[in-house]
Amino acid sequence: MATSSTPSINSAVCPSADISVAPRRSLFPATASFSPRRLDLRPLSSSLPLGRFKAPAPISARSRSRTSACASAVTEDATKRADSRVSTVVDVDLGSRSYPIYIGSGLLDEPDLLQRHVHGKSVLVVTNTTIAPLYLDKVVKALTHGNEKVTVESVILPDGEKYKNMETLMKVFDKAIESRMDRRCTFVALGGGVIGDMCGFAAASFLRGVNFIQIPTTLMAQVDSSVGGKTGVNHPLGKNLIGAFYQPQCVLIDTDTLNTLPERELASGIAEVVKYGLIRDADFFEWQETNMQSLLARDPSALVYAIKRSCENKAEVVSLDEKESGMRATLNLGHTFGHAIETAFGYGQWLHGEAVAAGMVMAVDMSHRLGWIDDTIVKRVFCILQKGKLPTQPPEMMTVEKFKSVMAVDKKVADGLLRLILLKGPLGSCVFTGDYDQRALDETLRAFSKN
Amino acid sequence: MATSSTPSINSAVCPSADISVAPRRSLFPATASFSPRRLDLRPLSSSLPLGRFKAPAPISARSRSRTSACASAVTEDATKRADSRVSTVVDVDLGSRSYPIYIGSGLLDEPDLLQRHVHGKSVLVVTNTTIAPLYLDKVVKALTHGNEKVTVESVILPDGEKYKNMETLMKVFDKAIESRMDRRCTFVALGGGVIGDMCGFAAASFLRGVNFIQIPTTLMAQVDSSVGGKTGVNHPLGKNLIGAFYQPQCVLIDTDTLNTLPERELASGIAEVVKYGLIRDADFFEWQETNMQSLLARDPSALVYAIKRSCENKAEVVSLDEKESGMRATLNLGHTFGHAIETAFGYGQWLHGEAVAAGMVMAVDMSHRLGWIDDTIVKRVFCILQKGKLPTQPPEMMTVEKFKSVMAVDKKVADGLLRLILLKGPLGSCVFTGDYDQRALDETLRAFSKN
Repeated sequence: MATSSTPSINSAVCPSADISVAPRRSLFPATASFSPRRLDLRPLSSSLPLGRFKAPAPISARSRSRTSACASAVTEDATKRADSRVSTVVDVDLGSRSYPIYIGSGLLDEPDLLQRHVHGKSVLVVTNTTIAPLYLDKVVKALTHGNEKVTVESVILPDGEKYKNMETLMKVFDKAIESRMDRRCTFVALGGGVIGDMCGFAAASFLRGVNFIQIPTTLMAQVDSSVGGKTGVNHPLGKNLIGAFYQPQCVLIDTDTLNTLPERELASGIAEVVKYGLIRDADFFEWQETNMQSLLARDPSALVYAIKRSCENKAEVVSLDEKESGMRATLNLGHTFGHAIETAFGYGQWLHGEAVAAGMVMAVDMSHRLGWIDDTIVKRVFCILQKGKLPTQPPEMMTVEKFKSVMAVDKKVADGLLRLILLKGPLGSCVFTGDYDQRALDETLRAFSKN
Repeated sequence: MATSSTPSINSAVCPSADISVAPRRSLFPATASFSPRRLDLRPLSSSLPLGRFKAPAPISARSRSRTSACASAVTEDATKRADSRVSTVVDVDLGSRSYPIYIGSGLLDEPDLLQRHVHGKSVLVVTNTTIAPLYLDKVVKALTHGNEKVTVESVILPDGEKYKNMETLMKVFDKAIESRMDRRCTFVALGGGVIGDMCGFAAASFLRGVNFIQIPTTLMAQVDSSVGGKTGVNHPLGKNLIGAFYQPQCVLIDTDTLNTLPERELASGIAEVVKYGLIRDADFFEWQETNMQSLLARDPSALVYAIKRSCENKAEVVSLDEKESGMRATLNLGHTFGHAIETAFGYGQWLHGEAVAAGMVMAVDMSHRLGWIDDTIVKRVFCILQKGKLPTQPPEMMTVEKFKSVMAVDKKVADGLLRLILLKGPLGSCVFTGDYDQRALDETLRAFSKN
């Protein structure tokens, strides 16, 4: 059991690093495809007052819509106090539900940043047994420093995906009600993706909706789950089947919290970073191919850059498709296979990013079997995940039947048809479709399963 | 125990029916007050093609904003088939989340009405052990008649407010997942307020939101809980503390379902009908004073009229304030006291409308103690609730302490201040305020409690 809970790192030889022939990025002609938007030709990195941070070279000019996701320095006051610190802001544009993502080192030492987003007089911090001893005091101090009117309560949940269920969620409601929280209270999620998802769903449901703030402390949560408003809990038969779309007041990412993150958790977050490159940002993928070692070594500049660029990608997609009617689904590359692994293997056996990594290899394999991508992409994906210390195949216990039974209840099934995110065309282009040859899916499942 | 679960009908003598001096309705000058809007001077009843239905006389000219709530006949096709039947539509105007409320006799015999609002190929009917034997087959037939593509599953929950909790809600998710429902499915709530609230919250949360349809079968649900998108479940410490604002695709009110409703349930619904008159519609209150016997005798025309006018009032308020930032709270006249009764007495001991009736008497008493209304209103409220066979005081077990401890966690508490809906000015005018003399509240609690 102990061994099976460790990801199996595929031992195939990684091709030499010179496989980096990036195809010219052109809009793939298929109508259902999604490619990066280019509305502003200014390089993003040149427009950022980033303190001592400089974007790691080489980064080619990157373009994006400034209306849907833009970056700027945190406000002058906060910047002055944290003068020498890395800090930047990505805005998620959702009309009246827009919010900023603050990214930087030492942001938990800036009480103003948090306090400006706290409404009412009572705050409930939702965290877990691992994070509470490390950061709860710091967060309570940031919430109350110079602000005696605020009362902060906390609820400390057991740590792990296997506790992401309705039973644990009820503990949050119990605490909020016992503490007589009212509609003007604020919930603060302090922890990884599990805490963020549960706290967010609790905030969405408590008194039919109260304010909340995300303070993600894992790379996975910082680059993915804390942004975009997807909240929820698992059901014994599937992940995230119960939840809500509910946006926070702000996301505060203090990259210093990554200093206490276990290596395996760091790698798990890197899986989602790789995903952004594959689905819509070939330049970012190339940057990762060059800078993976810096990320694993927790180089602060590399981390801030990877988080910022990941959040920009996610913010742009979410701004365009908040409720996942189409484009947003592309953020789930590898997740349908990955969720099947997590569900069949038992929540918490593999980390989410580990399952997604194996799932991405499967999605890429299937895309190649369909003739939609050339084999250099297959090799580059395999190689970058190996560099990132991530698994490249499912655990041995997975069978074709196990994949199929879980995938049948995936949220992307519509009227019985399983839609998948697959790569199509040059690096950085993908499709979300149910229109594929079923044999390719069967072949991929067989190729990656024991029976 | 059996006796204490029966509402105590106050035995004070009801003043003679000639106390019907309606004060001239003028906008009460207080800035925080809410009064009926008058934007359209056409009498509503004259503009309705209502089949054989005629508005019971006397009804004075009624005015409303046609943009926020309007009534029209159901579409021509349906009307042709149900030619001689009472039918009308009230629209709830919420932009992209607008929906119609169909009201009439025999509407469950009109498959088109339901089917036009079913999206996708799978439907889950959520109902209870009381309603299933009466109407489930009829609803399944309406959903599938001439439409073989649709698969209908059902989940039958135990009946009663005490089952309105997270544990019962999970049975809905279990069934939906076991039946492999996907994002394009439709949930149908078939039952009273408890079923509507639970099914609505399940629909809001399943896969982060699927379509749903309300088929309310109690007068309470038809005039109040099915309209406006409030969904949720109770927590042991308070009613409706966990939930969501989530709008249905349509509400289908077949008044024939009231033929099987127990008398006590009918009276419970009448409490909410009385409420609309008190908070914003003096003409409607006067109509009720004249027509209460017809309502209790289930006269079809009287019922359709009372439901339509209640839905119009609610639709107008919800259109103006969906998320209850102010005006919508006025729909909770008597509910803060009433919820305290329900919670302290144990869910299901008293019906919701019974608790609300006693709560309204208390709110009116407090308004009078504050000098905000004259005593003719106090007497008329007391009298109409007696006529409606509703309690006019809390159960004997209620103490001041029990009221206070539950009211402290009411959703209308903001930063520690309990805001209440109180009458102020002429009949049909109310305020939602925390700015009242606390002694009046204490006196009311003492006057209506044993100790």
